Amino acid sequence: MSQNPERLQPRLERLNEALESGALDQARRMLNRGLAPVDVAHLLESTPPREREVLWELVDPELQGEVLQYLNDDLQTLFLNRMNAQQLVSATEGLDVDDLADLLQRLPNTVTLEVLASMEAQERQRLETVLAYPEDTAGGLMNTDAVTIRPDITLDVVLRYLRRHERLPDTTDSLLVVTRGDKLIGSLPIERLLVSDTTMLVRELMDTEGVSIPAMTPDAEVAKLFEKFDLVSAPVVGTDGHLLGRITIDDVVDVIRENAEHQVMSMAGLDEEEDTFAPAWRTSRRRAVWLGINLLTAFLAAAVIGLFEGTIQRITALAVLMPIVASMGGIAGSQTLTVLIRGIALGHVGGGNVKWLLNRELVVGLLNGLLWALVIAAIAVLWFGDPALGVIIAAAIVINLLIAALVGTLLPVVLKKLNIDPALSGSVILTTVTDVVGFMAFLGLATLFYL
Amino acid sequence: MSQNPERLQPRLERLNEALESGALDQARRMLNRGLAPVDVAHLLESTPPREREVLWELVDPELQGEVLQYLNDDLQTLFLNRMNAQQLVSATEGLDVDDLADLLQRLPNTVTLEVLASMEAQERQRLETVLAYPEDTAGGLMNTDAVTIRPDITLDVVLRYLRRHERLPDTTDSLLVVTRGDKLIGSLPIERLLVSDTTMLVRELMDTEGVSIPAMTPDAEVAKLFEKFDLVSAPVVGTDGHLLGRITIDDVVDVIRENAEHQVMSMAGLDEEEDTFAPAWRTSRRRAVWLGINLLTAFLAAAVIGLFEGTIQRITALAVLMPIVASMGGIAGSQTLTVLIRGIALGHVGGGNVKWLLNRELVVGLLNGLLWALVIAAIAVLWFGDPALGVIIAAAIVINLLIAALVGTLLPVVLKKLNIDPALSGSVILTTVTDVVGFMAFLGLATLFYL
Repeated sequence: MSQNPERLQPRLERLNEALESGALDQARRMLNRGLAPVDVAHLLESTPPREREVLWELVDPELQGEVLQYLNDDLQTLFLNRMNAQQLVSATEGLDVDDLADLLQRLPNTVTLEVLASMEAQERQRLETVLAYPEDTAGGLMNTDAVTIRPDITLDVVLRYLRRHERLPDTTDSLLVVTRGDKLIGSLPIERLLVSDTTMLVRELMDTEGVSIPAMTPDAEVAKLFEKFDLVSAPVVGTDGHLLGRITIDDVVDVIRENAEHQVMSMAGLDEEEDTFAPAWRTSRRRAVWLGINLLTAFLAAAVIGLFEGTIQRITALAVLMPIVASMGGIAGSQTLTVLIRGIALGHVGGGNVKWLLNRELVVGLLNGLLWALVIAAIAVLWFGDPALGVIIAAAIVINLLIAALVGTLLPVVLKKLNIDPALSGSVILTTVTDVVGFMAFLGLATLFYL
Repeated sequence: MSQNPERLQPRLERLNEALESGALDQARRMLNRGLAPVDVAHLLESTPPREREVLWELVDPELQGEVLQYLNDDLQTLFLNRMNAQQLVSATEGLDVDDLADLLQRLPNTVTLEVLASMEAQERQRLETVLAYPEDTAGGLMNTDAVTIRPDITLDVVLRYLRRHERLPDTTDSLLVVTRGDKLIGSLPIERLLVSDTTMLVRELMDTEGVSIPAMTPDAEVAKLFEKFDLVSAPVVGTDGHLLGRITIDDVVDVIRENAEHQVMSMAGLDEEEDTFAPAWRTSRRRAVWLGINLLTAFLAAAVIGLFEGTIQRITALAVLMPIVASMGGIAGSQTLTVLIRGIALGHVGGGNVKWLLNRELVVGLLNGLLWALVIAAIAVLWFGDPALGVIIAAAIVINLLIAALVGTLLPVVLKKLNIDPALSGSVILTTVTDVVGFMAFLGLATLFYL
């Protein structure tokens, strides 16, 4: 067995040398015969645009489909849009139906129809089954390659039937038991087939309580089912209980990875399918929107400060200390928000226990508010020699941490109810609130006291 | 087949009713017979501390081990520390070796030794094999339950050998081929066993190029291998090539999920294994540290503002506008930082292409800096009627976005080289820089101009 299958780096270095010295034929050979399609995709994703163009042209046309399926959406769209229907058909030959369906969904409708028209009838029908469902549902994730058997045959017959196959579909851990009308009634784990008495009937051994997934189930729910029941594959059924296809764990792992990335990326207003090496111009346009939204909230905070210009002119120490009040509120609020967003995603938070959490967060806000208010007040008094300033900033800190706890807890619950992604908009709204409340409390209290 | 295995909600509601009305016997029955261990764990994780105590006492002692393995670290530690060695042994009977090893690692050493002493010799030896490796390596993730075969037998013999088992280990998708000395030399996919001629030898059909994972491989690397090669299980070997055990996809899915949560949680200074319903006092203590670290950076920014008190007293508009400069830098920098952290995690970023990315980010910073500098300057001039103020804030914005691009790109690369988790400390360092540079550039330029 290969002790370490990751000996990619030396091969990549030799490939780079070949490219740089202009030995394109040698590079072509290394690319198409020395690397797996998933490695070629990884290489393309790790390469800046200009060199990437050269690389892509070196990939054999019949391998391009295999490589395409591993690329992020950005790059898939880029390369797909250059191919005509004929090239697409030959490049995508032999792909799994679910991967092919993903690719076709990035194409203009007319091209998709052309590709469909040029396929064999059986293959086309399978593809159309998958294309009928949105990409992010069980139907869009499934493959149509399940091995099906009837309930009233013996294991011996099943074994002989299997031996007539040249190979079984990837990740076949159970055979699906269907009626003559293709209604799913159970599944027979391969494992049971191997250890049981071969004269027994499928009906006697099949599992009728296993998981079957309705085709319209959202992909995040599918992932939860796989995790909960440690599944390797699961059948997908239509509303009438008919078997449509089968989802395998490798596609579910992709879903889990993508959903996790989505949360991290959307907190910075980014898209998880974005090409790491997107050109500067496109990157600038995409990021500008998020900066604009945040600018609006920054001007809102500035407007609050503007209300108190007179006070600041008299006591400039306020200008020095005010970012501390806003920043502590923002940090404390983000902690609460993060815990709540995760709790909701895991299904821990909902209904009855939100009230308990709100109480807990308010107590935490109060305790940490008091602790850090004391520290900050002491430093402020030492710095500016004004005891009143200490009292004012302490009060503002406590107020802002309590508001941060309140908003951090309730905001994700409310956004979730409104079907708005809390990872995307939660932290913008939260920091707007903690900035506005922080400046308002600190400068407002100071105005009341000093004027 | 059950169309929807998620009919948990109604059962939970009935359980809650039983608990509230004090019908503890009824609640006990529902908990131990109506719910799967994974559901009981989920219920415990979703329940505030006081009710949780009641629930845990209702779980049958022999089910507690099953439930424990699904709980987060916080709750595992809480409940484990109340059990004595005898209770532990009976509760954990029948657990997979890898899950048992995870639990034992949370116990004091003396208790672990007691538990080991009370086990059967064979079981103890298996457990000690797993315990010899850190939890976050391939060795810590593996199970010791692989089915092994010799190379020089026919498939017919293999099939008869398998039929002598009552069941095969969970997620057995291939049989591992070993020498007499237990050295791993290949694997035979179950699928191949089912479709091939039964008179052939294992040696002729086995896969010798498959993935085998050295025991000290970090768990994140294990996850990458599973994703890359769409694995369902993989053998783990010692440095001498001997078979130690087998990792299955369900454990890898947990690793992927935990590593993804780690990134999101550590950005807010939180731990991914933290109990959502931890008591207020413990929560306050944990979060206080993060607030303290951020307070230091906030005082650093305040000190910078303090340098320019005189200027602010003359031109109070500076105090109004200065948070905008800092905030835009922070947002732009976070976008760069997030893209880089993800790029590094995916293995896209490294070596030669960092320079390209730095150039791209600087161009993006310049373009967005110019765009938003114009907008902000226009508003500032309209607001305060002072063209000089517009020029000053525009310059400060461009400077801060360029610095944000520089630090956002290089910081994660440097932190990674120093083996510091960029998700944890990256954004604190970044916003400190963008705050300091933002205030310094804006107030400094204003001081140069106005004084």
